[in-house]
Amino acid sequence: MNTSYAMTRLRQSCAENGPLCVGLDTDPSYIPPEVLRMYQSPAEAVLAYNRGIIGAVKGNAGCCKVQIAYYEAMGLDGLRVYAETLRAVREAGLPVIADIKRGDIADTAKAYARAHFSGIFEADIVTIHPFMGYDALEAFIEWPRNAGKGIFVLLRTSNPGMKDIEWQQLADGRRLVDAVGEKLAAVAAQFEPDNADAAPCAPVGAVVGCTEESDAQQLRGAYPGLFFLIPGYGAQGGTARVASVLLRKAGGTVNSSRGILTAWKKSESLCLRRSAGSLTMNDITDAAGQAAFAAKAELLAACRLSPGDTDR
Amino acid sequence: MNTSYAMTRLRQSCAENGPLCVGLDTDPSYIPPEVLRMYQSPAEAVLAYNRGIIGAVKGNAGCCKVQIAYYEAMGLDGLRVYAETLRAVREAGLPVIADIKRGDIADTAKAYARAHFSGIFEADIVTIHPFMGYDALEAFIEWPRNAGKGIFVLLRTSNPGMKDIEWQQLADGRRLVDAVGEKLAAVAAQFEPDNADAAPCAPVGAVVGCTEESDAQQLRGAYPGLFFLIPGYGAQGGTARVASVLLRKAGGTVNSSRGILTAWKKSESLCLRRSAGSLTMNDITDAAGQAAFAAKAELLAACRLSPGDTDR
Repeated sequence: MNTSYAMTRLRQSCAENGPLCVGLDTDPSYIPPEVLRMYQSPAEAVLAYNRGIIGAVKGNAGCCKVQIAYYEAMGLDGLRVYAETLRAVREAGLPVIADIKRGDIADTAKAYARAHFSGIFEADIVTIHPFMGYDALEAFIEWPRNAGKGIFVLLRTSNPGMKDIEWQQLADGRRLVDAVGEKLAAVAAQFEPDNADAAPCAPVGAVVGCTEESDAQQLRGAYPGLFFLIPGYGAQGGTARVASVLLRKAGGTVNSSRGILTAWKKSESLCLRRSAGSLTMNDITDAAGQAAFAAKAELLAACRLSPGDTDR
Repeated sequence: MNTSYAMTRLRQSCAENGPLCVGLDTDPSYIPPEVLRMYQSPAEAVLAYNRGIIGAVKGNAGCCKVQIAYYEAMGLDGLRVYAETLRAVREAGLPVIADIKRGDIADTAKAYARAHFSGIFEADIVTIHPFMGYDALEAFIEWPRNAGKGIFVLLRTSNPGMKDIEWQQLADGRRLVDAVGEKLAAVAAQFEPDNADAAPCAPVGAVVGCTEESDAQQLRGAYPGLFFLIPGYGAQGGTARVASVLLRKAGGTVNSSRGILTAWKKSESLCLRRSAGSLTMNDITDAAGQAAFAAKAELLAACRLSPGDTDR
């Protein structure tokens, strides 16, 4: 059955609204205590914050990514807010990526796929750890076929430690990242293009950070057909220039979390307003909206300046 | 601060109660529909099942491991039952391992550690993915120092796909599993022995499956000081003989999930009772208790037969 793939919708949304992925990695500590106190609980404040930001970034974001760890850390209340946040993103008409980085096998992997592709925690696309081997992907790959869902598999992450395992040199001359990438490209190729759409996109993509230009050049060149989820932009030192390399060919979406979520802290007028005790949740989410506008503009400018072909 | 490590308590519990780890990977489908219907919801039935099994295996299990995926698949209700199950294991006086296989970096890893080492989802020990690199372990390693918590890092899992990444041959002649294992041994060595206890045990251990004897020999020989969480026994084809190899030196705990949880299905008299419509939850949990007794006996017999030294 050839349903419309969430990954194709994501790609179309990025073509319409720009390549920015707003990361709702919302820690209650991002909200000033005096604003936090206006809500029944930290979890409720986080929900209001997320809803405000989802509204404020519309038109300047291709999608949102929700990092489940911050919600797990708030217990059951936090997970209820996680579910509400996923719903709010979908209701705003944006694809939602659940950044769950699960990785397990057999019946356990099936349970994770069921948990995050259906029911209260239903997302459009999830992130997956390949460490245990390619059988860890199987349970998730049923879901694109049957329900259009998508997966991003960790390939080359944006943290310095990525050299420890992902970037290991193998005996056959490849790096581990090449072995995993080749497998992902082969899996992605098994899916028929989603012919209903102008820009078909396989429902299996890869996570590739934008922290090192030469790595970005190599991986974009090696896997022209994989859509990328691109972390590391902003807070982690990745640049729009490197992101623009990864946005070529099949394209991708560039995550920014703290750069958007805590944009208010960089506004002198809002810091003054905070000192005066009159900072509101609206001020915070407006600042997030402006930061999304600026990030989108920076990414699109880098794409125009960046050499190399693109089929976006 | 030298608190009593959960890993040391786990090792002591295994010395007293045997090396079996009962895996509460409880899928509602393991419970016959007619028994399931006696409860308000599938999640409530799972909680009763778990509580019954925890009681029934006492004295024959060194610990319990709770696989969070099955509870996530039941939504918020499932996660409440997950929390209650962790509490029931701890109240029974057994160490509880949360099989969460999380793996992330920086603030996100800190959020996961907070989520699973404190609050409603507090466990004694958690399982961790090393794929993103050794900085993925940092946030978790603070917790043994401060609160006695422990981690098991995935090293050589029990699934056939483990050859895809974990068992890759590196350019320097080692396998990836060796690179990760050496790092874990070095991290474990940073912890002072917990002098309050007779059998000190570093709070950093490794997951090593018992599906292949030569791999078990190699890894047990290479990392004599690491305590192992040993999956694959029973349903996945691992044997007590191979497990006994991994139980030498620093020792370990051997997980069995379905072998215990669905033991009732192998009892002719219980299947007859089910046909007669009179199977009860007590019948099911009694069968689990008998299966735990048999598994413990099989593992201890294999340890007696197995050549090689042991310091247990």
